[in-house]
Amino acid sequence: MVGPGPFAEITRMDEYRGQKILLTGGLGFIGSNLAIRLVELGAAVTIVDSLDPTCGGNRFNIETIKNEIELIEADVCDLPLMRKLVRGKSCVFNLAGRVSHIESMDDPFGDLRANTTGPLTVLEACKLENREARIVYAGTRQSYGKPDVLPLVETQLLKPVDVNGVNKMAGEWHHMVYRQAYGMPTVSLRMVNTYGPRQVIKHARHGFLGWFVKLAIEGEEIQLFGDGAQLRGFSYIDDVVDALLIAGTNPAVIGDYFNLGGLRPVTLTALVQMLIGITGKGSYRIVPFPPEKRAIDIGSVYTSWMKFHFATGWQPRVALEDGLARMVAYYQKYKAHYL
Amino acid sequence: MVGPGPFAEITRMDEYRGQKILLTGGLGFIGSNLAIRLVELGAAVTIVDSLDPTCGGNRFNIETIKNEIELIEADVCDLPLMRKLVRGKSCVFNLAGRVSHIESMDDPFGDLRANTTGPLTVLEACKLENREARIVYAGTRQSYGKPDVLPLVETQLLKPVDVNGVNKMAGEWHHMVYRQAYGMPTVSLRMVNTYGPRQVIKHARHGFLGWFVKLAIEGEEIQLFGDGAQLRGFSYIDDVVDALLIAGTNPAVIGDYFNLGGLRPVTLTALVQMLIGITGKGSYRIVPFPPEKRAIDIGSVYTSWMKFHFATGWQPRVALEDGLARMVAYYQKYKAHYL
Repeated sequence: MVGPGPFAEITRMDEYRGQKILLTGGLGFIGSNLAIRLVELGAAVTIVDSLDPTCGGNRFNIETIKNEIELIEADVCDLPLMRKLVRGKSCVFNLAGRVSHIESMDDPFGDLRANTTGPLTVLEACKLENREARIVYAGTRQSYGKPDVLPLVETQLLKPVDVNGVNKMAGEWHHMVYRQAYGMPTVSLRMVNTYGPRQVIKHARHGFLGWFVKLAIEGEEIQLFGDGAQLRGFSYIDDVVDALLIAGTNPAVIGDYFNLGGLRPVTLTALVQMLIGITGKGSYRIVPFPPEKRAIDIGSVYTSWMKFHFATGWQPRVALEDGLARMVAYYQKYKAHYL
Repeated sequence: MVGPGPFAEITRMDEYRGQKILLTGGLGFIGSNLAIRLVELGAAVTIVDSLDPTCGGNRFNIETIKNEIELIEADVCDLPLMRKLVRGKSCVFNLAGRVSHIESMDDPFGDLRANTTGPLTVLEACKLENREARIVYAGTRQSYGKPDVLPLVETQLLKPVDVNGVNKMAGEWHHMVYRQAYGMPTVSLRMVNTYGPRQVIKHARHGFLGWFVKLAIEGEEIQLFGDGAQLRGFSYIDDVVDALLIAGTNPAVIGDYFNLGGLRPVTLTALVQMLIGITGKGSYRIVPFPPEKRAIDIGSVYTSWMKFHFATGWQPRVALEDGLARMVAYYQKYKAHYL
């Protein structure tokens, strides 16, 4: 633990007790961890998830709460369904989407549907049925493209370098427009290299860290592209769940967008060495960039989360060593459900 | 005429002679004026237009060139068709889209399809069939939202305040991504209150100036919302066509985005007085903002076009008085085709 954490916010989380919460993409990495915390906090959780094979949905992610939540397997682009589901909800976590940058280049229309049409459908449903519901969107650092300065701050122009970054940017700004035009309480948190239990590890397309964890656990070789000296900040899932819960209740964040981020950035080489130290297995090798990955690579990047900190008191608490150790322990136990 | 105009560029326009050009949205206001110029320059023009009733397409717009062009009535979201059409073209003007801010709020999904999926389909078709074709996108000042400073410059964050502004922003950034990832020669010009012959005048949803011209010609009362003191810059269509033609050939603009804009901005009151002076008919009255328009109004706005000027030598040439006079003369003659 580093620092006092979101001290002022712990009491606010009591606000979730007895509340009806809708969570799109709730079988995915971030959504399922959030759902588990919401159930612990006494909320009545409804999950909508399409289990789209290109997304990260996995039924095992909610194994521990499966009898305590309502699960609806459906596409969030289904407006009549979403109109029914948003009624009576105090908060909607608008998380469903695709996260792969490479896949977005291969299937730009599928990515547009998942990351722009889907979130817009949720907004439109709330506009028509429930304008009071807090709506929390999962934006992404990827929409910035290459950082002008580090740490990356919210005043930088969004200059996305892949289709996913463009479509997520549009999804975020629809939330800003619905605030401006209809007074709806929306907020976007821009996610930054989130990692932890329930992340996809069977391929590298949902973040390379999941893939590295899988390779290290299995004693395989990890390939680092470029020179391994790229700096990255990482957000542990529990910190991200804290941030989402705060964004779901704190009045100071409405109508605005905020970077998340981690503690001090590390080089990819340092990250991998740490991971190999934890698992006691695996190795790494530095290799040249494949061309299709180089085209959308953004180099070193880590973010300032000061805007969100000053608005809410949130700060990341879990050190990378601790987070990686918890993640490795999870997959050593449950690997079979993720491969 | 003001200033020397795009002197250095006139010769470049000879490059269009004998070239095969694809023009989406070519029955609309800007597209049809561009098509007429391209035919004059000796280009072989193919127009794709869906004649979507919410767009500005009008067969009469190309009356004078209808036997000299190829017209395909189709939806640009038809990828197999677009793949066929982009083959062999040296330049694609990716202009098809919706322009109404108010309609985008009523039909956000239709606007998304027209302004994001459509242009993305054209890009994808070129990626698959013809990566050499110059692709010129019609962006919009609306994607900026409210100006931080005036004149509005390209370094401002895009903070759109309506769905149309978001979807056009996404359409533009797909062009930037396809440049970055695939080396395709794309460029976006951000349009600013373009006016002139062939503009929609039968309602105010495609720009208020068309509607004002119609009211003035018919001797009716023009209503100005707010106080009439809002400043606006206006781009005459011939200047915009020059800019598009330059963007279609000049190597200095590739992979970048540029504001267009007009000569000195005027208040809406001054604009309307000028218009009434030209027609010798009509009147005006200042009225309060209707709530749905106030929600997406952006106040005074005019743009710097210095970035495009320094890249290419372009500058607006047609004074507002001259442009309005030409526009009024056009509609006095052809009004019946536009009402």
